[in-house]
Amino acid sequence: MEPVSAAVSAVLPAGGSGERLGGATPKQFCGLQGRPLVSYAVRAMERVSWISDIIVVVSPENIETMKSIIEKYGHKRVTVVKGGITRHRSIFNGLKVFAENQSSNRLLQKPEVVIIHDAVRPFVEEDILLKVVTAAKEHGAAGAIRPLVSTVIASGEDGCLDHSLERARYRASEMPQAFLFDVIYEAYQQCTDHDLDYGTECLHLALKYCKTNAKLVEGTADLWKVTYKRDLYAAESIIKDNLSQQICIITDLKEAVAQVGFLLHESLKSQVKVEAISISLRKNDSHLQNIFSGECYNFLCINDKEYATEEIQQLVDMLEKSNIPLLYPVILILVHLSISENISFSIGLEELTKIKKFAREVKKKNILVYGLLIQCKVFFLP
Amino acid sequence: MEPVSAAVSAVLPAGGSGERLGGATPKQFCGLQGRPLVSYAVRAMERVSWISDIIVVVSPENIETMKSIIEKYGHKRVTVVKGGITRHRSIFNGLKVFAENQSSNRLLQKPEVVIIHDAVRPFVEEDILLKVVTAAKEHGAAGAIRPLVSTVIASGEDGCLDHSLERARYRASEMPQAFLFDVIYEAYQQCTDHDLDYGTECLHLALKYCKTNAKLVEGTADLWKVTYKRDLYAAESIIKDNLSQQICIITDLKEAVAQVGFLLHESLKSQVKVEAISISLRKNDSHLQNIFSGECYNFLCINDKEYATEEIQQLVDMLEKSNIPLLYPVILILVHLSISENISFSIGLEELTKIKKFAREVKKKNILVYGLLIQCKVFFLP
Repeated sequence: MEPVSAAVSAVLPAGGSGERLGGATPKQFCGLQGRPLVSYAVRAMERVSWISDIIVVVSPENIETMKSIIEKYGHKRVTVVKGGITRHRSIFNGLKVFAENQSSNRLLQKPEVVIIHDAVRPFVEEDILLKVVTAAKEHGAAGAIRPLVSTVIASGEDGCLDHSLERARYRASEMPQAFLFDVIYEAYQQCTDHDLDYGTECLHLALKYCKTNAKLVEGTADLWKVTYKRDLYAAESIIKDNLSQQICIITDLKEAVAQVGFLLHESLKSQVKVEAISISLRKNDSHLQNIFSGECYNFLCINDKEYATEEIQQLVDMLEKSNIPLLYPVILILVHLSISENISFSIGLEELTKIKKFAREVKKKNILVYGLLIQCKVFFLP
Repeated sequence: MEPVSAAVSAVLPAGGSGERLGGATPKQFCGLQGRPLVSYAVRAMERVSWISDIIVVVSPENIETMKSIIEKYGHKRVTVVKGGITRHRSIFNGLKVFAENQSSNRLLQKPEVVIIHDAVRPFVEEDILLKVVTAAKEHGAAGAIRPLVSTVIASGEDGCLDHSLERARYRASEMPQAFLFDVIYEAYQQCTDHDLDYGTECLHLALKYCKTNAKLVEGTADLWKVTYKRDLYAAESIIKDNLSQQICIITDLKEAVAQVGFLLHESLKSQVKVEAISISLRKNDSHLQNIFSGECYNFLCINDKEYATEEIQQLVDMLEKSNIPLLYPVILILVHLSISENISFSIGLEELTKIKKFAREVKKKNILVYGLLIQCKVFFLP
C-alpha cells in the first residue's frame, strides 16, 4: 500500500440516539460479543498507523461512558469531545479541537486531511481509508459511495407517487469521507443554522460553501451503517466469522510434536488461515509477537510434557501483554500428546485439577483455556 | 382486521442471480436454518387466507428446484412459472397466467388485485399486505416505502459529486406492492422493450402507462430485502429469535402436575409468550390444534407417569399431522416429575434407552425430543 503523504486525523460522530433501533441504548454503545459497537469503529481507525488523532464526539451524558470504554479496551490516540444536538453540530465540535483553543480539550495538531467516519460502521478497512484520503488531498473532498439497493421515489403532497429516480444514475452516500481540513472547516464556519440543524451530508456543505465537488469512491459492501436491530445481528455474525478465520498452532521443538503441528497445518490450510510455529516458549519470540499483532484469536498449543506449566504461563503472559484479549476472547487449546508404547487410560487427577484452576484464573483476563489429552500407542514393527 | 373485499392473488419474482451476495447459490435459494429463503416468503403469503393463488417466477434452470421446495415444505396454492431474463419480464410472465392460455400453465382465475412481492423479503406481515391491497383497490396501485438510510447523491461524468438529494423529500421504494390487475397488466402490455430490460420499478410503469399515481404506504423495518451476506446472517438471527418467543406447556389433568404447569406459566410469562394447558393427550384436543396453527415451536410436556408412551406418541402424531415440523424444527421437552416420599436416585436404564430410541426416530421428522427427570421429595409436616 502506498504510504500517505499528509498528516491525517479522524473525527467519529457518535452522538446519535438510535431511535430507529428501538432500544434504550444508543446503537453505538450496544454490545457486540460484549464490546460496544463504537469500540470496533475506534479500533478500525486506531490500527491504521498513519492516522494521528481520533476524535470521538459523544453527547454530554455519554462522555464518562466513552472514557471508560477507551480505558477498558486500551484505545490509544483518542480524544473525547462533547457533541451538539445534531450530527453536523457534533462534527463541527470535533473539528474545532484542531483549530480553536477550548477549555475542555487541549488544542491538537491541525491535520492536512481529516477523515469523517461513523461510529456505527465498524468494518472499515485501511484500503478504503487510504483511497478517500488520497482523493481528498487531490480534490479537496472525497466520500465512499455504494449502489442503491432500492429504487428512490419522491412522494407528492397527497402521499402518492410523484416520480421515481432512475436507479443507475444515483448512489448512496456512505462513510468514510475525507476532506482537506481547511475546506471542511471553512464550510462549517460559513454554513447556516438551518444547515447545522437539518442537514446531514458533509459532502453537500463542501460543495455549497467551498465549491468543492467531492471525488466519489466506490466502497465495499461492509461499509454499511448499523441502523436497525437486524444490523446488530449481522455485525455480530460477521465478527464471529472473522474471529474464526485464523488459527495459530504452536509446538515445542521436539521433532515428533513439531511433526504433528506440521500435519495439522497441512490439513487445515484449505479451510482457515493457519500459522504453525515450533518454538521454545521460554524465550520471547518475535515471530509469535507478529502473530499477536496480526490479530489472531485462536491458539492451539501442542506439547508432550505432562503439564507444561511454565511454557503455558509464558504464553498467557505474552497474550496478556499484547492487549489482544482486551478486544476479543482468546481461545487457547492445550493439547497434551501422550505418545507411548503402552496405552494407559489413567488421567492424573492432580493435573486435571491444576488445569481447571488455571483456566478459571485466566478466564478473568478474557483468555479461554481448553485442554485436550490425546494418547496414542506407538507400534514398532519388526 | 377488516376482511378484504376483493379477489387477491400474488406474484413473487424469484429469478434473480444474487450477484451481490457473492456466492454461487442465488440468494432466494440460500438456506436459513436449512430451509431456502424463498420458502419463507411463500409461507408469509400462504398463511394469509385471503390470497388465492401464489405465483412464484423462477429462472428456467430452477423450476425443478422450486417444485421440490414446494413439495418438501408442504406449500399450498402455489404455481411455478418460468421467468424471463430480467425482473420486469419475469413479473410479466407471472401476470400472464391470469390472462393468457399457455401451454405450460393452466389459466388461473383473474384476481381483482394482484400483490407483487420479492422472494427475498421473508418477513412480510398480513397487516402491510392488507394495507397495500386496500390502497390499490382505491388508487389502482400502492407500494410500501421506507425512510432513506443514506443520503442519495448524483455523480457527474467526472466521478465527482454533482448534487445530493434532500433526504427528507425522498423515500426508498420497497415491497410489497399491489395493483388492480387490469392496471398493471395493461402497463406491462404497453411498455417498451427498454422498460422491460432496464427498468425495475412496477410503480413507475403504472404511472407512465396508466397514469396511475400509486398510494405510498409507510412500511415496517422488517420489509428489507436480503441482498448481501450480512442480510442472510440477520435473517437467520431474526428467525431464531422469533422461534424462541413462544412456548406451550402441556400437562395431564392430575392436580399436582397441572399446578406445576400453572406455576411455570406464571414465572415465564414476563419473558416469552406462554400457553399452559392441561389435557388428556389421548383425545384430539382442539385447543392444542389452535396452538399448532399459531406456529408455536416449543413444547414442554410435564407428567408424573414413568414413561407416558401413548400420550407422547399421540402428541408427536398431532404435531406431525399439523405440518409445522416441515417448516422449522419443533422442540419437545418431556419432563417426568417424580413426586414421592422417598428420594430415589435410580433412573430406569430401560426407560432411558426407550426415550433415546424414540428421540432418534422422531428426529427424522424434524421433532427434537429432550427428556428431563425431576425428583422431588414431599415432606409431611406433623
